[in-house]
Amino acid sequence: MMLKGHQSWTFENRPVILSTATVVGPEEGQGPLQNDFDVVHSDLWMGQDSWEKAEKKMMEEAGQLAMKKANLQAGDIQFHIGGDLMNQIISTSFAARTLAIPYLGIFGACSTSMEGLAIGSMIVNSGGAKHVLSGTCSHNCTVEKQFRYPTEYGSQKPPTAQTTATGAGACVIGKQGVGPVVTSATIGKVVDMGLTDPFNMGAAMAPAAVDTIQAHFRDLKREPGYYDLIVTGDLAAVGFDIANELFHKHHFPINQTKYMDCGLLLYDREKQGMQAGASGCGCSAVVTYGSLLKKVRSGELKRILVVATGALLSPLSYQQNESIPCIAHAVAIENGGN
Amino acid sequence: MMLKGHQSWTFENRPVILSTATVVGPEEGQGPLQNDFDVVHSDLWMGQDSWEKAEKKMMEEAGQLAMKKANLQAGDIQFHIGGDLMNQIISTSFAARTLAIPYLGIFGACSTSMEGLAIGSMIVNSGGAKHVLSGTCSHNCTVEKQFRYPTEYGSQKPPTAQTTATGAGACVIGKQGVGPVVTSATIGKVVDMGLTDPFNMGAAMAPAAVDTIQAHFRDLKREPGYYDLIVTGDLAAVGFDIANELFHKHHFPINQTKYMDCGLLLYDREKQGMQAGASGCGCSAVVTYGSLLKKVRSGELKRILVVATGALLSPLSYQQNESIPCIAHAVAIENGGN
Repeated sequence: MMLKGHQSWTFENRPVILSTATVVGPEEGQGPLQNDFDVVHSDLWMGQDSWEKAEKKMMEEAGQLAMKKANLQAGDIQFHIGGDLMNQIISTSFAARTLAIPYLGIFGACSTSMEGLAIGSMIVNSGGAKHVLSGTCSHNCTVEKQFRYPTEYGSQKPPTAQTTATGAGACVIGKQGVGPVVTSATIGKVVDMGLTDPFNMGAAMAPAAVDTIQAHFRDLKREPGYYDLIVTGDLAAVGFDIANELFHKHHFPINQTKYMDCGLLLYDREKQGMQAGASGCGCSAVVTYGSLLKKVRSGELKRILVVATGALLSPLSYQQNESIPCIAHAVAIENGGN
Repeated sequence: MMLKGHQSWTFENRPVILSTATVVGPEEGQGPLQNDFDVVHSDLWMGQDSWEKAEKKMMEEAGQLAMKKANLQAGDIQFHIGGDLMNQIISTSFAARTLAIPYLGIFGACSTSMEGLAIGSMIVNSGGAKHVLSGTCSHNCTVEKQFRYPTEYGSQKPPTAQTTATGAGACVIGKQGVGPVVTSATIGKVVDMGLTDPFNMGAAMAPAAVDTIQAHFRDLKREPGYYDLIVTGDLAAVGFDIANELFHKHHFPINQTKYMDCGLLLYDREKQGMQAGASGCGCSAVVTYGSLLKKVRSGELKRILVVATGALLSPLSYQQNESIPCIAHAVAIENGGN
């Protein structure tokens, strides 16, 4: 039985992350993780004539590079799982047209990265595929335009606002081979605390992250000390503080030195002027696949829990006075010892 | 090994569709399948103050009714899988907030109905859940407004256009029990023949449907005669004819009396003035869960293959002169003999 507790899976066949690939934009390429990415585009247009096409191009590049690094062709991969923040997840779906692999589109806003890795690992673990490609992407100019204002307006943002990351991250999950292994996953519930400010996503998402993290440890009967690092997706400065407060309030024994957020890792907030930090589908994807898995491979981190966080609003739901429903999905990744 | 051929799964543990529920709007409630639906709303507003909230309400009703019919509570169901056509799949995500079950959002446009049933069956088959709720929905006024024009404009549509169905369909999939069983599924590739007319979706989607159907029979080494009925999701009149032509051209031995399309079953096109027929996420969901599974339960149909079809465009991709990438996912459902 793969089901553990109420909402978690354990993967007894230990699916392997055979390869990862990350493609980022100029700002990400100047941040503290610059040496962890495979491709850094110096120009946000990336040779395309629209921001949306640039985002799609990054996803294609990350998918193709992940396959190449795993020494696999599209025909060796049974399923491509992915999604993004664009309406109708066009970046991923149009990239899926190029990649030509049977395709499962998913949407969990910025939690999509770990939703895809969880579903992909579930499929590989149960013998439903030999190889699965999973990935996600975001582009600062597509997402800001769709959810807030076109970046060309140059509108000011409050300090609680996060900067949508420009980047795509992908991985190939396989039945066997060398690499970090996916050992379990916890699927989150929608949590909505009634927050309505689209310029303060971190605060809205923090309770969902805490809910999923606590569910993970309850379902797996583990203590937080089991992991060397627990990392949320894109809570950034405001949400990270709220998550820490909630852990404290719930008497949840998370070791403060072991909890971090991808939205705080991607940029040098002060030097780069990034307000509360990073967000977007690409944030947790490029930080996890570019930086954290490098450390898992080297053994610097033996076991990590990546908890990608998503705000499931739309501009229309906001206009209709709805609050922001949020969700988080957690995936445990361990050094494969191989 | 659950994987069969290149892109199909066979479910050796035969997950059971324990219950189904369908909620539709006034037009669907006056069509030929009117007696097959659980709830018929006589008013498109459904007591809500926006079309989007009406769509969400249908999804909540269908989900709740499916659980009730299976004698299950939200706490008995491990995962809710679903999506819809709205930007950021808000109808399903906001319904997921109400249903309060760990949630996996998916997007395959109108193929979402069978994408959800396929993933849900895969999870139940592999011991990843005891029960999964899967569903999808669409509302004529939300979808027409988002993809074309608000219905209040009363703009004329060409005869190739399809009418977005107002309806939500859901099912509960279980490890064991009484009901039709899901025996296999085929996940489609993105197929794009270069068509660009958003008023002729059927033509764009037909090649994707044919591609997935042929892949299904290739992967499972079956002949079309294995099924009593093969039914596509929403090709409607134009796409249905094209699919038939493609089968003929490919010398694919599909028995014409056994192939049908949900988009042609939902309305009386002539009497109801529905141009080419029905479309939308709700179309294949309510026809399958309301009408076809009734016949599978009674034994009138022993084995069916439901091939939901999706057009993965967005209004923005259309404006940027992109053609329409399409996809189709097939699920085989058989009388459980129980």
